[in-house]
Amino acid sequence: MDLARRIADSETRVFKVVFPNTTNHYDTLFGGMAMYLMDEVAFMAATRFSRKRMVTVSSKQIDFNHPIPADTLIELIGRVTRVGTTSLDVEVEIFVEEMYSDSRHLAIKGGFTLVAIDENKSPRSVI
Amino acid sequence: MDLARRIADSETRVFKVVFPNTTNHYDTLFGGMAMYLMDEVAFMAATRFSRKRMVTVSSKQIDFNHPIPADTLIELIGRVTRVGTTSLDVEVEIFVEEMYSDSRHLAIKGGFTLVAIDENKSPRSVI
Amino acid sequence: MDLARRIADSETRVFKVVFPNTTNHYDTLFGGMAMYLMDEVAFMAATRFSRKRMVTVSSKQIDFNHPIPADTLIELIGRVTRVGTTSLDVEVEIFVEEMYSDSRHLAIKGGFTLVAIDENKSPRSVI
Amino acid sequence: MDLARRIADSETRVFKVVFPNTTNHYDTLFGGMAMYLMDEVAFMAATRFSRKRMVTVSSKQIDFNHPIPADTLIELIGRVTRVGTTSLDVEVEIFVEEMYSDSRHLAIKGGFTLVAIDENKSPRSVI
Amino acid sequence: MDLARRIADSETRVFKVVFPNTTNHYDTLFGGMAMYLMDEVAFMAATRFSRKRMVTVSSKQIDFNHPIPADTLIELIGRVTRVGTTSLDVEVEIFVEEMYSDSRHLAIKGGFTLVAIDENKSPRSVI
Amino acid sequence: MDLARRIADSETRVFKVVFPNTTNHYDTLFGGMAMYLMDEVAFMAATRFSRKRMVTVSSKQIDFNHPIPADTLIELIGRVTRVGTTSLDVEVEIFVEEMYSDSRHLAIKGGFTLVAIDENKSPRSVI
Repeated sequence: MDLARRIADSETRVFKVVFPNTTNHYDTLFGGMAMYLMDEVAFMAATRFSRKRMVTVSSKQIDFNHPIPADTLIELIGRVTRVGTTSLDVEVEIFVEEMYSDSRHLAIKGGFTLVAIDENKSPRSVI
Repeated sequence: MDLARRIADSETRVFKVVFPNTTNHYDTLFGGMAMYLMDEVAFMAATRFSRKRMVTVSSKQIDFNHPIPADTLIELIGRVTRVGTTSLDVEVEIFVEEMYSDSRHLAIKGGFTLVAIDENKSPRSVI
Repeated sequence: MDLARRIADSETRVFKVVFPNTTNHYDTLFGGMAMYLMDEVAFMAATRFSRKRMVTVSSKQIDFNHPIPADTLIELIGRVTRVGTTSLDVEVEIFVEEMYSDSRHLAIKGGFTLVAIDENKSPRSVI
Repeated sequence: MDLARRIADSETRVFKVVFPNTTNHYDTLFGGMAMYLMDEVAFMAATRFSRKRMVTVSSKQIDFNHPIPADTLIELIGRVTRVGTTSLDVEVEIFVEEMYSDSRHLAIKGGFTLVAIDENKSPRSVI
Repeated sequence: MDLARRIADSETRVFKVVFPNTTNHYDTLFGGMAMYLMDEVAFMAATRFSRKRMVTVSSKQIDFNHPIPADTLIELIGRVTRVGTTSLDVEVEIFVEEMYSDSRHLAIKGGFTLVAIDENKSPRSVI
Repeated sequence: MDLARRIADSETRVFKVVFPNTTNHYDTLFGGMAMYLMDEVAFMAATRFSRKRMVTVSSKQIDFNHPIPADTLIELIGRVTRVGTTSLDVEVEIFVEEMYSDSRHLAIKGGFTLVAIDENKSPRSVI
């Protein structure tokens, strides 16, 4: 399978209700929870692309420009954006959707780098 | 927007790692956890279709034919399959993907009926 | 021990506070959470009856007729209702109790089928 | 209703699978988790007895004589053992049941004192 | 290293936001949750003192004199207070801090006894 | 109180057992969980410094150089490193401690920027 096709096929989507138990005391999604979910999506997109054991080695700067209120829906979308020898990059976007209108906008975007490792936790080819 | 388009747009997908803390002591996804996730996806697909307050009123028979082992990925896909006056049906499928191969198969399928309610929790038009 | 006695002895009860973190944004118990709890009780009643490794193979239709508000108590009661060769049925009821009055009523009832499995996950006698 | 009857009716039982995610790294139920569950049962028994707002004011010494291994079932049983003017005592026992045999024994016993409070959090009559 | 130094070095501190999902329906920290956190801190202080496998064998009486409201910060501090042959005692205090003022006070104090165990779960020297 | 003193006083420490339910399927702390914990510590240090309502607006690049194995202890330490007009920076370090030896090393370091907001979520002075 060619690279472009593998990248398209490994796009990974996760919808989620912003239930009260994931929000802080300002009633918006806790920043750490957003980071947790983004890393999980990055891991899944990377694994589905490479079908190797992948681990996160770094996250790039993440800006939390738009607070995500409770009682909305969010969709996380993870896409492989760079394929190296033993590492790859995944970009994860979080969109916010109102529950009771068709309003939707991008709230957070972040980049993660993951490496493929073998049984001894040494780097190996990502493809 | 026409109905077919709203149904297509409200399709809701959720990928998830079957982490050890969601499995039972046979190391397969706990059935109750699968039901929990399916109802959450049904709720999101119904809400995204109707943009009304939706509540689950029943789940149809669910068969757990294929155990879902730990350390796999699952994708839940929810689709509106019937639109009534104050209620609609959502079908939710759970696919299992091996992490380290391209193998993927349907493991569980279930149907949920949800109704639209107004502020007083009385049924209202679903569209 | 005779069958009637084993059925009586394996009845399994679970009381639970409906804490805010188990409710949805309508402040009632999330349907998926009810299903999760019911399956856990079905599993315990089946295991306590058979003393074999049991897995859920299907849930029958479940009707959520009465929403369960936050800040109530619920009691789940699971009882074996059919004993087959390699499978058995468990019925699970959820009762709601007001905290500050003696009011109590049945809110949800559901049926689950479980099979006994051996070390190789093949069906085996349930008794 | 007379006192003995109210005490009998407020006995509160909770069965639970000791899933791996409630155990520590010795594969036995984490002591703090046992205390958490015991306090929850004490609260429910006290509330079901008094039908007033109850809060825990103290726990008596608790001895963890028998470690509770993963992959067993536990049953917590809470009973009102003393009824004062504005407070009452609840004793909570935890029994361990093997999954695959009829073996069952008492593992932990603890006492809790709870008081009834009014809207202003002042003590009020417990009956 | 001498004993006083090991005791000082093993002091263990944990700050925590009292998020809504750790409180009960009176909007104060659930007593069982406080006990859970205290036992975890006792375990860490004991382990960091002895560097042996430690298990809790008893908790002394715990008084919950001051309710801990939601949307405050708490700090748990665990200190070894007695060193025996195969057991030691840890005292754990919980302080409450207002978020938006410098107000801070002691809310709960509790004592735990832990023993050192070897691979066969037999008691062994704590030092 | 002068600035240096406020910075020293707001240093925030959190010890934690790396329990199996916080690790991924390689038996090391899940990267997203580390980010979640770091943001929580950053929030507490910022709040304890300013005693204002603080929200995270960005995280700087985070490198996960050293995997954190299960069954270790971690200590997170958060310190205010820059104080601006309406924002401040917090640096959070995660140290790993072996349970059964005095070995300890820095595993992860990350920077967060938080802003002080008023009731209308507009920026306000951080001091």
